[in-house]
Amino acid sequence: MTDKEFFKVTSMETALQMTRTFPCVSKEVLPLGQCVGRILSQDIVSKIDLPEFNRATMDGYAVQARSTFGASESMPALFTIVGAIEMGEVPTVSVKAGEAVRIATGGMLPDGADSVVMLEHAQALDDQTLEIFKSTAPLEHVMEIGEDFRRGEKTLLKGSRIRPQEMGVLAALGETHIPVYRKPVVTILSSGDEIVPIDQTPDLSQLRDVNAYTLTGLVQLSGAVPRYLGIARDSFDELHGFLENALAEADVVLISGGSSVGSRDFTIEAIQALADAEILFHGVSISPGKPTILACSKEKAIWGLPGQVTSAMVVLHVMVRPMLERIGGLSEGQIGVGHQVSAVLSRNLASVQGREDYVRVKLVRREDQVYAEPILGKSGLIHTMVKGDGLVRIDMNSEGLNEGTPVSVILF
Amino acid sequence: MTDKEFFKVTSMETALQMTRTFPCVSKEVLPLGQCVGRILSQDIVSKIDLPEFNRATMDGYAVQARSTFGASESMPALFTIVGAIEMGEVPTVSVKAGEAVRIATGGMLPDGADSVVMLEHAQALDDQTLEIFKSTAPLEHVMEIGEDFRRGEKTLLKGSRIRPQEMGVLAALGETHIPVYRKPVVTILSSGDEIVPIDQTPDLSQLRDVNAYTLTGLVQLSGAVPRYLGIARDSFDELHGFLENALAEADVVLISGGSSVGSRDFTIEAIQALADAEILFHGVSISPGKPTILACSKEKAIWGLPGQVTSAMVVLHVMVRPMLERIGGLSEGQIGVGHQVSAVLSRNLASVQGREDYVRVKLVRREDQVYAEPILGKSGLIHTMVKGDGLVRIDMNSEGLNEGTPVSVILF
Repeated sequence: MTDKEFFKVTSMETALQMTRTFPCVSKEVLPLGQCVGRILSQDIVSKIDLPEFNRATMDGYAVQARSTFGASESMPALFTIVGAIEMGEVPTVSVKAGEAVRIATGGMLPDGADSVVMLEHAQALDDQTLEIFKSTAPLEHVMEIGEDFRRGEKTLLKGSRIRPQEMGVLAALGETHIPVYRKPVVTILSSGDEIVPIDQTPDLSQLRDVNAYTLTGLVQLSGAVPRYLGIARDSFDELHGFLENALAEADVVLISGGSSVGSRDFTIEAIQALADAEILFHGVSISPGKPTILACSKEKAIWGLPGQVTSAMVVLHVMVRPMLERIGGLSEGQIGVGHQVSAVLSRNLASVQGREDYVRVKLVRREDQVYAEPILGKSGLIHTMVKGDGLVRIDMNSEGLNEGTPVSVILF
Repeated sequence: MTDKEFFKVTSMETALQMTRTFPCVSKEVLPLGQCVGRILSQDIVSKIDLPEFNRATMDGYAVQARSTFGASESMPALFTIVGAIEMGEVPTVSVKAGEAVRIATGGMLPDGADSVVMLEHAQALDDQTLEIFKSTAPLEHVMEIGEDFRRGEKTLLKGSRIRPQEMGVLAALGETHIPVYRKPVVTILSSGDEIVPIDQTPDLSQLRDVNAYTLTGLVQLSGAVPRYLGIARDSFDELHGFLENALAEADVVLISGGSSVGSRDFTIEAIQALADAEILFHGVSISPGKPTILACSKEKAIWGLPGQVTSAMVVLHVMVRPMLERIGGLSEGQIGVGHQVSAVLSRNLASVQGREDYVRVKLVRREDQVYAEPILGKSGLIHTMVKGDGLVRIDMNSEGLNEGTPVSVILF
């Protein structure tokens, strides 16, 4: 056997398919104030009409629209002011033709009124007399009952992310406690005899545990909860023990450096000794990131990641984060949304057919166009990630991309 | 005085200028693991070279590059294997012309070697004999000492956001505790006799406190810490009391509904009664969001926000969030970055000259182009924010934007 046969490389398409086989995490119920960024685990059906009554959306005068027809600056229409409604008041007056009621934004339209004339288009001559300079249409500056959300309507869908505006909707519907998915828990363990904690000064044969921190940050930004377990030496027993602990508390386990040459055999052995374990793939046709392992034990995902931090980051962005979003309950259509922007390639990029290449780029705006500018420098240098804004994918069937090609940039 | 004179409207440019007058928050030192998303409060100068020695970036064989010149599949070069170096080992062998040492990714290059030949381009015939099929260049698959970061170099700059890759750099440099800016604390108080807590069923004259939740979410996504104080009635004493409490613990105060007709006078009076208080503006030339108040007391910002939730959200996105990023220490060049994407307008948009208009849009991808599709529906409806992805700005000097215009979309 030659060294080349070490990997039976799996295509990216097949590999991604395998990442889709893991079940969603369980559900929980949270107070609304804690829900920003979380994923709804049920559809939300409105129990009320919103608004619950015809509501003014401007400060002005409630009138019957037809009484204003033909009004203009040069020929104002005269109205009689018959009252005033503050926001929060139930009107006691009603409005007939030629009558107007002062109304505040959010106020309840009085019976008879069907429109609101803005303050800017009216002038009170005295307490009872109003000039209106502009005609208004029915329902202008009025929000009709149920116009925002109707009783019985599915207002928000299971699997959608709760942004500030969805929090507002839930508040408006009186939903104080929200059914959401738990955040996936991701345990991170580093493997390798050469890895030392970052507060130690490594000797020439050691490396600080850089990846644990990078992965911690990425997992957190992926909407999951990172838990760092520490550094496992390259021994079957130690790694196996770590893995059993990791699986006990996690939905997903990341073994940093677990696919590196020194650790690879121990990683695979230690995984295979777990209950109900299966190696799904070992080696993927992407660059960087080829020596990646995905396994499962009791329906939980175990990733063996490259030791080179930049490779591990690419694998996290293109394979692990989508998986975390998916098992975190996010609907298929929203996965990856918000992590990608469009740009145009600033120069030709060569690539090798038969694998997906991920090239680091910087986003640069020139005039009205955003360009993705490939970053030079060796792929293992972390400063290429610090200088970069994201990744451009080159398809496995492509020999490269030409300058000017529209590309989608996966943001770091 | 007519109602129209109620606002002396400030131009958006002047208003934004005023938001830039507030000082940065104080600093703190955090363990590295908690730093993702935080802003560096000092430059980070590397105390070491990274890497600290010449390091292999691939599994392969360390050689002298010139010994491989001319090697090809049909005419392999023959090498003598003189040893193997595991990652984490200090080499005891050195490499002369025609010699090769098996080396693992991350391994330390032995004396004499200046390049690494990938496993794929070599084949061991026996324990001592190696065929190499491809010539390699000096420093190929080698990371040179200091190539990533040099001792004494400013590796990361004050005011930059700590992403996962910056966490990695800090870990590599052995920085266990990081100088960052505190997260700005933003107290949120709702004002208005008509506002009730969301667990109450409002009668027809009341509204649930929708805005407090929307603002809480937005403040959190802006990198600040929201603190909800509750609902102040429309009385000078109550609002003033709330404000004094709010200022005691906050860097910024948001008065939700504080600029609405019912609350506006109380808001201004209550602010003016604070120590060292000044109203900076009251009314801005944007739509929606015109009736916005900005004041300061003891160098802290106090915002009076429109009661209409969609208007309040626009003000938060275009005025408050950039201010929070700035007082949170983010460098000028990074403010707003990551919240904007480029798109092309899908249809004509009319606008009124003399004010900045913010139009809600949905992002739609067709072929290689992302389109910003204006959302129809009354501006006060929160479902327009739920259906939308972001805001397109129409300049105050513009009468509108034509279909096909490239636009920048501020993401919700």
